[in-house]
Parts: sequence; structure tokens; C-alpha cells
Amino acid sequence: MSEIAQKFAPLFNPKSLTLIGASANSYKWGSVILSHIIAGHFKGKVYPINPREKEILGLKAYSSVKSLPETPDLAVLVIPSPSVPQVLQECAKKGIKAAVIVTAGFAEIGAEGGKLQEEVVNIARKNGMILVGPNCFGIISTASRLCAIMPPLLPKPGPFAVVSQSGNFGVSIAQRLISKGFGISKLISYGNEADLHCEDYLEYLAEDSETKVILSYVEGFKDGRKSFETAKKVTQRKPIVMLKAGYTSAGARAAKSHTAALAGSDAVFNSVCKQAGIIRVRDIDEIFNVGTALLYQPLPRGKRVGILTAGGGWGVLGADACINAGLSVPQLPEETIKELDSLLPSWWSRGNPVDLVAGVFGKDVIKSAEAMLHCAAIDSLMLLNLRPVLPKGAWLLSNENSVSREQLKAFADTVAEVFEQLVGLLAKYGKPIIIASEFGSGYIDAQISRLAVQKGIPYYPLPDHAATVLSRLAEYGEYRARLSPHSSSMLEPRYQDSKN
Amino acid sequence: MSEIAQKFAPLFNPKSLTLIGASANSYKWGSVILSHIIAGHFKGKVYPINPREKEILGLKAYSSVKSLPETPDLAVLVIPSPSVPQVLQECAKKGIKAAVIVTAGFAEIGAEGGKLQEEVVNIARKNGMILVGPNCFGIISTASRLCAIMPPLLPKPGPFAVVSQSGNFGVSIAQRLISKGFGISKLISYGNEADLHCEDYLEYLAEDSETKVILSYVEGFKDGRKSFETAKKVTQRKPIVMLKAGYTSAGARAAKSHTAALAGSDAVFNSVCKQAGIIRVRDIDEIFNVGTALLYQPLPRGKRVGILTAGGGWGVLGADACINAGLSVPQLPEETIKELDSLLPSWWSRGNPVDLVAGVFGKDVIKSAEAMLHCAAIDSLMLLNLRPVLPKGAWLLSNENSVSREQLKAFADTVAEVFEQLVGLLAKYGKPIIIASEFGSGYIDAQISRLAVQKGIPYYPLPDHAATVLSRLAEYGEYRARLSPHSSSMLEPRYQDSKN
Repeated sequence: MSEIAQKFAPLFNPKSLTLIGASANSYKWGSVILSHIIAGHFKGKVYPINPREKEILGLKAYSSVKSLPETPDLAVLVIPSPSVPQVLQECAKKGIKAAVIVTAGFAEIGAEGGKLQEEVVNIARKNGMILVGPNCFGIISTASRLCAIMPPLLPKPGPFAVVSQSGNFGVSIAQRLISKGFGISKLISYGNEADLHCEDYLEYLAEDSETKVILSYVEGFKDGRKSFETAKKVTQRKPIVMLKAGYTSAGARAAKSHTAALAGSDAVFNSVCKQAGIIRVRDIDEIFNVGTALLYQPLPRGKRVGILTAGGGWGVLGADACINAGLSVPQLPEETIKELDSLLPSWWSRGNPVDLVAGVFGKDVIKSAEAMLHCAAIDSLMLLNLRPVLPKGAWLLSNENSVSREQLKAFADTVAEVFEQLVGLLAKYGKPIIIASEFGSGYIDAQISRLAVQKGIPYYPLPDHAATVLSRLAEYGEYRARLSPHSSSMLEPRYQDSKN
Repeated sequence: MSEIAQKFAPLFNPKSLTLIGASANSYKWGSVILSHIIAGHFKGKVYPINPREKEILGLKAYSSVKSLPETPDLAVLVIPSPSVPQVLQECAKKGIKAAVIVTAGFAEIGAEGGKLQEEVVNIARKNGMILVGPNCFGIISTASRLCAIMPPLLPKPGPFAVVSQSGNFGVSIAQRLISKGFGISKLISYGNEADLHCEDYLEYLAEDSETKVILSYVEGFKDGRKSFETAKKVTQRKPIVMLKAGYTSAGARAAKSHTAALAGSDAVFNSVCKQAGIIRVRDIDEIFNVGTALLYQPLPRGKRVGILTAGGGWGVLGADACINAGLSVPQLPEETIKELDSLLPSWWSRGNPVDLVAGVFGKDVIKSAEAMLHCAAIDSLMLLNLRPVLPKGAWLLSNENSVSREQLKAFADTVAEVFEQLVGLLAKYGKPIIIASEFGSGYIDAQISRLAVQKGIPYYPLPDHAATVLSRLAEYGEYRARLSPHSSSMLEPRYQDSKN
């Protein structure tokens, strides 16, 4: 085991843990967190500590750390902040090597809290203990079935690590992943990052074989230079998608009172991201969309997008969105135009976007997609408006109340076939394929979203989403290519885990 | 009836119509459109024309315009483009006063199509006939239950007019409205706008009493100056929310081959919007979000936003989003801080955003919201993360598979109560209240969305959405205030139709 893996083992793979401040009152966090540890089927032993209870949620309760029958690997603290130093000292004496301090009321509330926090860090460091928090939601490690966290998140194992300075943000992004069928390797809400800093988690996750993509929410860095150096190493192995909040004056002020973070200059951070290969995103939609696309899509070799659209309006919006996102929408070479001539009606626009106009359905759409993918002037394909891949009768399906289950099933089968064909094209040409489409029916859009996740073809409601994702992928692709210009394939193999 | 209402009456309130190019083959548009006219329960008489059929979809078919037993108010043409001039001439001879030409293959395909289009316009104008299209999806007018349109949209009557140069875009936005429970007054897909231009529709809709908010998608203007003058008059009566596509070089190129539109300079268009009071938006999410917020929310008196957040991370993102959108997040005056002191735990941040921290639930959230709303330094309230308005136990509801129908019902009741209280605050203070929150559960998020529409409190997944909407509302509010600076209330009464 590497040094870093060894250091983090008591945190993410503990054989036993103690919850200090466990409670029998289901409206207290000490009860809520314990219930999640139990509901998550934690693989190890659990020791609740509460001096006034004999048993909590069916587990024997202990009066103090000292009275525990063994030394647990991990302590989770949910006690008032003034008691934290003393209790942490007891943990150290017992030989506990890792602690998660959920409690708030430290550096984020001002000078007095800052002093308390310093005291806590000193105790930890003097005793060779690592600390998550304080002022955080807790952690999840699916390999150990460890859900020591405030909200009821019980994800399945999977390729995403969520590292978030904000607990609520971490939960929001994790819930999106869970609701779309994705699994999670680790979730870390690190709050004030008093001891372990953002860069420590990144360093660990780079080596963590369960983690394929790192999703990170940051308000500020304790040690900017070190974070940068660490990130630079990590992004050579796996992508870091980062949402940096507090990039306006009002946001920075809010960040300071939230996690005592010093937000720093936005322009500086931008250039740091570029140099370190960090994929910077702007909101929750984007971190989710870019993160999941990275899992399945190859990195494009450049920024030239081919747009295939059913409906000119979608094409105009798509072209605007690409240019806006820093991509290009090049004219197609003569031979590609000729190839499309044989597939499309005589009056087609002969430009990029390729407008399928109101007469092309079914197989010719897939053939047109292929014509664009094997064109050397195109690095990725954006497919806008899925309707025409369906037979004309399927228009009627947008009103699901008027159709039968059988019709919906036939619809789903057709869409599944289309996705299967796109997966084939993806494998054949190694260029990203991203869809933006909307049927305006909750049922149908949800069905297609599910299929998109299963098949690994990103599917978004708007062209803007698709363009942003392609742009971020292209930038990361260019970064990786610069690092290994002589490598014939700089790309990691497409993520293959069918359980995902 | 005003002159303009009279001019448009045969189009939007026809007593009878003929569908030229009607078909018995359900895979032809001439059949699809007829089926929508029938399914929409059009109030008037319908005359399908097809020389080879005796009856289509149960209606007697006619061989030509000449052979119709009466003169219909409206003709809808779905015939190949080369035949359009001759048939339109026959319509004119018959005395028909309005036509919708669905057929494509006119100015958008080049010089030859341009000539054909000119011919068609000349016939119409010589004969006092108005024309929608060509190269469009058709129209909907719910007052006449007229659904003469390619996709199967059967909206209920309601306050939104959708005027779109792109058929697909018009359909996308209409489907969003329908799926969220909103009604539509008119939908116009105007394509090449050969005869009637965008400004003609705007002029008509300004007078149309069924229309409260105009949602417009534009690729270019035939007559920029006239469009501007018209819009300037319209926006004094009701808002125009406009998505201008083709604002990049690639988008403009696509627009030209789509609807023969000349996109023009983006900067010029921006300043035109400012001068004419047009609310310019950037994507489908935005046109929907801003449009629906305008329906229910008062216009804010300024750009100063109070943010009430459960969770600091959401607050940081919200503050960033506000500044980014051109709003401000001012410090709160001493008396408001004091008022909040009595409601929040001692360690609260005493800043804006107001972070409820992890200890405030239920009624104190609503009281905190009220404290901010009656603060004179705040023009609107952004409420981030709805969770804490619920009792702690409700956290568990985010995993709907593990809870009973009864628990979900209890949850829904609690949320309904919160919305009811917010509606009360809205009425009392006349300042916009907008929520951004996400439960990560499709079922629960859909339930809350439905409630939000019913109660008229906008509810979006992300702070960015909320900030964009507030910013657009504030700009329009300032525009209206500049026009009537002495009016004590420049605001239209909040839309009251409970059927919506």
C-alpha cells in the first residue's frame, strides 16, 4: 500500500468507528447520522458514545472514548464545538488515527472560533491523526459501505468521487448522480479544511482505483501553490472537474462566512486551471454534465463540431452555442457534402449545421451522422432534436396520455436501437457524440435519459449544455495532448463497467 | 373591432377553413395536420382538398378551391412549392382572406426559391390576403380551438403567445408550457415571414386580450426599424421576451439557410432591445423561466437581492450568480440584522446571504423571509434550498423508494403550506420571491414544480436560473418605471386567472 493510501485507510476503509455525540432523539444529528451508518450497512463495528444512554438504535452505547472495548480506526464527532478539543485529545490517547468533525462554530464564525480550530489541529497533528472538517456534512466511502453523513445518501459504488467544501453542494451533486443511475466511490464534505486540505483529498483520489472522475466544489484554497502542484499531477491520470464558487465580491464575502475560505482572484484561478489541466465549470448542471460525459466519451482531438439537426431553429441555436463556448462550426469539405447529397433531399442546406429538413427519417439520420463522423474536418458530433430518428407516427407520442403502453414500448425500442447504432459509431470513429433534444414529455424524456446513461451517450435538453460539455472536453483533450504529444493515443480507454 | 383585429380575424378566428393538400395517408403532413385540426375540436367548418379522394378522416373532400360550397376564411396549404402560386391565385379568386403556407422550398433555398416567394407575396397583396409562412409549422389559436400545425400540440387556452420564426423552437417552448400546466393564447410559426412579418404579429398580440406575455424567437428582421417601433409600443402594455438566435457568425450562416433571415449585428440588437423594452434572453430555459415569472411576479423596483439560504454553499453560488447577472447583494441594515438575531442561532453570519445554518427549521424560515422582505434595502428575495422549511424527518423523504404514500402526502402538505405563506408575503410586500432548490428526487421535484405553478412562486433547480430571472425582471421594471416615473404603481395587477 502506498504511503498516502495507508494514511487515508482509517478514514475511508475503517474496520470500526465511534460516533461521539450519538443520540436516541431522532431529531438530533447524532441520531440521524447514526441511522445512516446503520442503513448504509457499514462493514465494520460501530460504537455510539453518549454518557446518558445504554443503547441507541439497537447498538450498545458507551459513556466515553476511554471506555470503548477496542481502538476504533475512525471517530465521527457531533458534539458542541467547545467540547471538541478535550474529546479529540481523548481520541488521540486511545490511538484513533482519523476523525471527522461535523460540528460547526470554528474559523467560519470569527477570531474566537479560529482559535478553537487551531487548538484542534494542533492536537491532531501532534498525535499523527488526520481530520476532516470541522463544519462539514461528513463522508461516504462505498467500498466500506460507510455513510457517515448528515443527509440520507446511500449511493451504490461507482466511478465518481465528490470532494466538496460545501456539504449542501456535495449532496446536491451526489443526488443528481444517484437519481440518474450513477454510482459514487467517495463523497467528502470537507468544510473548513482545518487539517486535511483539498489537495490532500485530490492526491489520495488520484491513486484510488475506484475513482475515475473527480468532481470538486471549492470556495478557496488554504495553500494555493500546493493545490496547484497536486492538481497538475492528478489531471495527468484522471480528470478533475471543478466548480469554484465565490468568484464575485458578494460570493467571496459569503464564502468567508461559510467556510472561512479566502476566495482569491478569479482571473488568477482561471489561469491556474489552464496550467494545471483542471476543467473549470460554472454551475451544478455543468459539473454534472461534464463529469458524466468524461466517463463515457473519448476526448475530442480539437474544437471543430459537426452539427446534425432536425429543424433549422435548433441548428441556429446549436451553432450560436458552439461559437459562444469557444468551439468552431467549420464548413464541410466537398466530399462530405457529396456524401450527404445522396442521403438528403435536393433542397438541403449544404452547410454545417446539416439540417435534415422535414423529410429525413430513420436510417438516413444515422447514415448522415456517419458521413460527418468520418469527415476529417470534424472532431465531434452534436445531434440536435431526436424526433426524426423516429417514424413520423411517433410525433404523436409526445402526448403520452393519448397513447397506449404498447406504443410507448415500441417508441422505447426504436430509441434504444438508435442509441445502439450511435454506440457503434462512437467505437468506430473515436469521436464524441452528444445529443440535445427534448420531447416535452416527462415520461419520454426520463426514459431517454435513462437509456442515454446506460449506453453512455450524453443527452441534454439544450444545445447550450451540449456545447459547453464539448468545449470542456476539447480543452482537456488539448491539455492532455500537449503533455504527451508523441503518444499515439493519449486517451484512457472508455469506461467499461456495465454495472456503472 | 380595431383595424388590426379585423385584419387578423380570418387567421385566428376563422369560421371555416380549407386544408389544401389534405391526405388520407397518415404518414403525409396533409394527413397529420388535418388530424390535429380534428383532434383540437376546431369550432368551424373544415374543407379538405384533394383531387383524388372522396373523403378524408371522415370529412367530405373537395377536388379544388373553386369547388368549395362556400368561401372559407382561412386556407392552409401543404402542397409542393411549385404549385403554390397557382393555388393561391385560386384562393384569392374565391375570396379567401388569409392563408398559412406550410410548404418549404422558398427563399431559404436560394435565388430560385426567392423568386417563387416574391410571386406568392404579390398575389396575396394584390388581393388583400394575409399570409403566414411559407416554410413554417402552422398556427394555433385556442380561442377558436384551431390547431393547424404539424406536431400534435393541443394546448388549453392561457396567457402565453408564442411567436416563433422556427417551428421546432415554437413547439419546444409550447411543450414546456403545456407540460408545466400553462395555457397558450396563440402559437405562430412564421418561417420565412414573406408577407406578415414579426412586427405584424406583435402589433396584433398587443391588442389581443387573451395574451398577457409574448414569447418570441427571432432569427432576423425583414424591417428592423419598423420592428423596433412596434415593439416599443407593445412593451408599454405587455412584456415581450425574445430569444434572438444567429448572434454568432456560424449561427447567422445557419439562420440564412434556415429561414432566409439576415441576422444582423448582435451589439446593435442588444441596444435596440434596451431602447424598446424587449427582454432579451439566451436560451430555452431562460425564455420559459422569465416568461412564466412575469406572469405571477411583481416587477422589482431595483436590482438589490436579499438571499436567504439553507447551506452556505448555496449562498455562495447564489451571490456569485446575482453579481454575474448584473444584480447586487447589499449588506443588510442594522435593524434587519437585529430582527434576524431574534430568529437565528447566535453564530449566524450576519450578512447577506443570510445563512440559516443547520439549526433553523419550519416557521422561523418564513419569519426570516419576512424580515428581509420588509427591509427597504432589498427589492426581491431569493430563497435557496427548501429543505429546512420542512421538519428534520423530511430529509429522509429524498429517497422516495423507502417512504410510504402517506409520508409523501404529509411532505406535500407541508410544502403547500410554505407556498401559501410565501404567497401571503408576496401580496403583503409586493416584491418578487423566487426559489432555487433541488431535492434530487424526480417525484418530489415534480410535485413541488406543480405546486409552484399553481401558487405562482417560481421554483428553479439552480441559483443561476433564479438570478437570471430576477435580473430580467428588474431591467424591465426599470424600463417601465422610466416611461411612467410619476405613476405610483407602474405594475399591471398580478395575473389572477386561477385556471391559468
